Amino acid sequence: MENKNQFKNQSITRQEDDFAQWYTDVCKKAELMDYSSVKGFIIYRPYGYAIWENIQNYLDKRFKETGHQNVYMPLVIPESLFDKEKEHVEGFAPETLIATIGGQNKLDDRLIIRPTSETLFCEHFAKIIKSYRDLPKLYNQWCSVVRWEKTTRPFLRGSEFLWQEGHTMHEDELEARTEALKMLEIYDDLGRDILAVPFVKGRKTEKERFAGALETYSIEALMPDGKALQSGTTHYFGNGFSEAFGVSYQNRDGKIAHPYQTSFGVSTRLIGSIIMAHGDDNGLVLPPFVAPIQVVIIPVGQNKPGVLTKARDVYESLKKEGVRVFIDESDHTAGWKFAEYEMKGVPLRLELGPRDIENNHATVVKRNDGAKITIPLSSLVDQCKELLNTIHKEMYQKAYKYLLSHIREAHNLDELKEILDTGGYAKVMWCEDRACEDKIKEMFQATARCIPFTQIPFDDVCPICGKKATKVVLFAKAY
Amino acid sequence: MENKNQFKNQSITRQEDDFAQWYTDVCKKAELMDYSSVKGFIIYRPYGYAIWENIQNYLDKRFKETGHQNVYMPLVIPESLFDKEKEHVEGFAPETLIATIGGQNKLDDRLIIRPTSETLFCEHFAKIIKSYRDLPKLYNQWCSVVRWEKTTRPFLRGSEFLWQEGHTMHEDELEARTEALKMLEIYDDLGRDILAVPFVKGRKTEKERFAGALETYSIEALMPDGKALQSGTTHYFGNGFSEAFGVSYQNRDGKIAHPYQTSFGVSTRLIGSIIMAHGDDNGLVLPPFVAPIQVVIIPVGQNKPGVLTKARDVYESLKKEGVRVFIDESDHTAGWKFAEYEMKGVPLRLELGPRDIENNHATVVKRNDGAKITIPLSSLVDQCKELLNTIHKEMYQKAYKYLLSHIREAHNLDELKEILDTGGYAKVMWCEDRACEDKIKEMFQATARCIPFTQIPFDDVCPICGKKATKVVLFAKAY
Repeated sequence: MENKNQFKNQSITRQEDDFAQWYTDVCKKAELMDYSSVKGFIIYRPYGYAIWENIQNYLDKRFKETGHQNVYMPLVIPESLFDKEKEHVEGFAPETLIATIGGQNKLDDRLIIRPTSETLFCEHFAKIIKSYRDLPKLYNQWCSVVRWEKTTRPFLRGSEFLWQEGHTMHEDELEARTEALKMLEIYDDLGRDILAVPFVKGRKTEKERFAGALETYSIEALMPDGKALQSGTTHYFGNGFSEAFGVSYQNRDGKIAHPYQTSFGVSTRLIGSIIMAHGDDNGLVLPPFVAPIQVVIIPVGQNKPGVLTKARDVYESLKKEGVRVFIDESDHTAGWKFAEYEMKGVPLRLELGPRDIENNHATVVKRNDGAKITIPLSSLVDQCKELLNTIHKEMYQKAYKYLLSHIREAHNLDELKEILDTGGYAKVMWCEDRACEDKIKEMFQATARCIPFTQIPFDDVCPICGKKATKVVLFAKAY
Repeated sequence: MENKNQFKNQSITRQEDDFAQWYTDVCKKAELMDYSSVKGFIIYRPYGYAIWENIQNYLDKRFKETGHQNVYMPLVIPESLFDKEKEHVEGFAPETLIATIGGQNKLDDRLIIRPTSETLFCEHFAKIIKSYRDLPKLYNQWCSVVRWEKTTRPFLRGSEFLWQEGHTMHEDELEARTEALKMLEIYDDLGRDILAVPFVKGRKTEKERFAGALETYSIEALMPDGKALQSGTTHYFGNGFSEAFGVSYQNRDGKIAHPYQTSFGVSTRLIGSIIMAHGDDNGLVLPPFVAPIQVVIIPVGQNKPGVLTKARDVYESLKKEGVRVFIDESDHTAGWKFAEYEMKGVPLRLELGPRDIENNHATVVKRNDGAKITIPLSSLVDQCKELLNTIHKEMYQKAYKYLLSHIREAHNLDELKEILDTGGYAKVMWCEDRACEDKIKEMFQATARCIPFTQIPFDDVCPICGKKATKVVLFAKAY
């Protein structure tokens, strides 16, 4: 017996009616987050936080395998330390949260709640790096950071967000440059293997670089509303910070040198990217390897003899095989449960009623395409595991197709406008003049997302100024 | 060839000369932490942070097995929200760090950097708990908290420290009280199974309770200097907070009720407890199940043919079996390496030189008692794993013996003074009058650590006031 009212409670705005509202609705209704009483500081609810834990597990393993070590730096940065690197300060100063009172006394040196920890790492590196033997230092930190934002949206832009920030120091430039690219590859793997989100990878233009970096690389996802979402960045700093912070060491020739530095980070913004890339009008659609619940078992007619017993058997056998499985034995109707786990984007729903049990099978429904499959109980575990792999591949392929069909060449301003208006990336041959980049921003509110690593020139002149074009750049409107 | 100077660099204060200085030396020399430029905010270096990760791994698994879910609450608490629970505020207000500027503007409602998150959890619970079906809520959070301390010591007392804070809500009182005791048992297991630190468990006196709690339970470790170290607490709050924050729900009888609440936490203070409980004049002595490196391989004469190859073979075979193993191939002398990993407290040192290889064995040295054992290469992996278990048991037994021999009955003030002066717990029959507790504090700078769960009365009168005694209490000087 289904309760229509209970279904109604689940309803959310349709994507085509208002994509932004759909997004907020899903965040709340799928119980990923809640608002706190301070703007931009959200509560990560269990279902949302578990997604982050799955991302952490993947990355932490990859980081450790590649020789990185976790550390924890202080939450606060003295203003005097923060001010040491000019460009960096200019980038962050407008959006800092500053503590001025400690233990009921006014602080002499005000404390900035970390917006990022470059300065703290540099101060520490200056103390512990003495010799080439102390290099490389490959550090990572999992923490939250604070950036006082005017406009905030759950996961996408917050005054506080969770992230990891890697900070490394190297003897030579090539090693450091390689590190920045290597970590970008790990982020790209994360998208392909876990999030089912394909990224465009490349180098940022000078205008779009991180404050103080010589190179910034990024992974960019494309959302269904045609806007790009910067999903992770890695930076090569040269030894500018090292010099500013007095990090020096004796090199192999016995001379004093400044090490070369990188940093890299991804944040809970990735959760936003998963929600938008895959979700539909019924709610979340989670890729299996990031889903807190991979299979939900719904006993249908659970008061009938034998149903719960069999459902629990199936639960145990899936759990034993490492599948993240949940069984909902609550007294809600089956209909309510169907809607609930659709909203929550659980990849596989396994229905088990008296008739299924009689026939020694179960009915399995794929969240990503609604396909219904009848599976003999004897091969249920193996087939569920296989289906999870299939779903991941299907979701990735779908997103990849969408991405490919939304990268289009713009040979002139009209085409550029048309592409940016309808959504997706405009591939532009650029003269490398910042003025043209500024003009595109001004005319179309679009930014250079990246200079892709693969450069296949398709035009001779820049469509903005008509001068000689030298680089392929992807422009898009972005989050 | 050993370099005497390099040995000297490793030297630390002896415990009997100055235990506090020994502690600080070990923290620094074993590279567990470093100071930042803000007092009380330390840097958790990789070796120290890895210990915390091992503690986290154990507890996180136990929490999840007992139905707890991880969440993440905001870093900041509006002052107006914080002020809602009177007793709680009084407990924390003097040591808060307060942010007053955000995005270059003065904040209307000042933001307290969380010293603990009871108020945030309550505000959230008020929104999400509507019906008895929503209970229990069993939440946990891993984060850092800030308490502006005047006197700070690495890991033991800091202005910022890392911890987990559990917060739960229950339908009935008994379930909540049981939860507070159950989590205390998990902490106790952690001590016995992982840290090799035996705890005294019990209930706090009213005076020593957490701000706002009706009951506080604690685990208390005893350090070699005779002082107790509170290592973890669990709290039962009744429904006082629930009422103050308007958390209410419809119970099974259709009536409005306030849920019963608990919280529980352990922090990086546990690292301090490990350092002191086991360390010696050569540095750290780490219990195997918390040690970042369980076995360190030192190739002796590593330039001789075959040595490194064999050492790497051994490394791989240990690694494959899940042992946390490290091989030091640096060009430091073997002597330097011996001192280094002694300082770092690695449970097993495995020496492998040309003669060992010739004889098909390795020399293994136990950090906890210096015992040297020759082991055939064919059974090396199994024996190493067995030795790690043995070391854990030996370390626990040693600490347990020390604890037992330092709990002594005090029948009068003279005995009380003698016990507290020489160190350890004075077991006192107490009249339950706060005045007597205050007097012991005043006379001997000792506090009631706990009212042990096992109560075996051994006297009729309170040694302070001479009135009827009703409770066995353990008093001690404490960190």
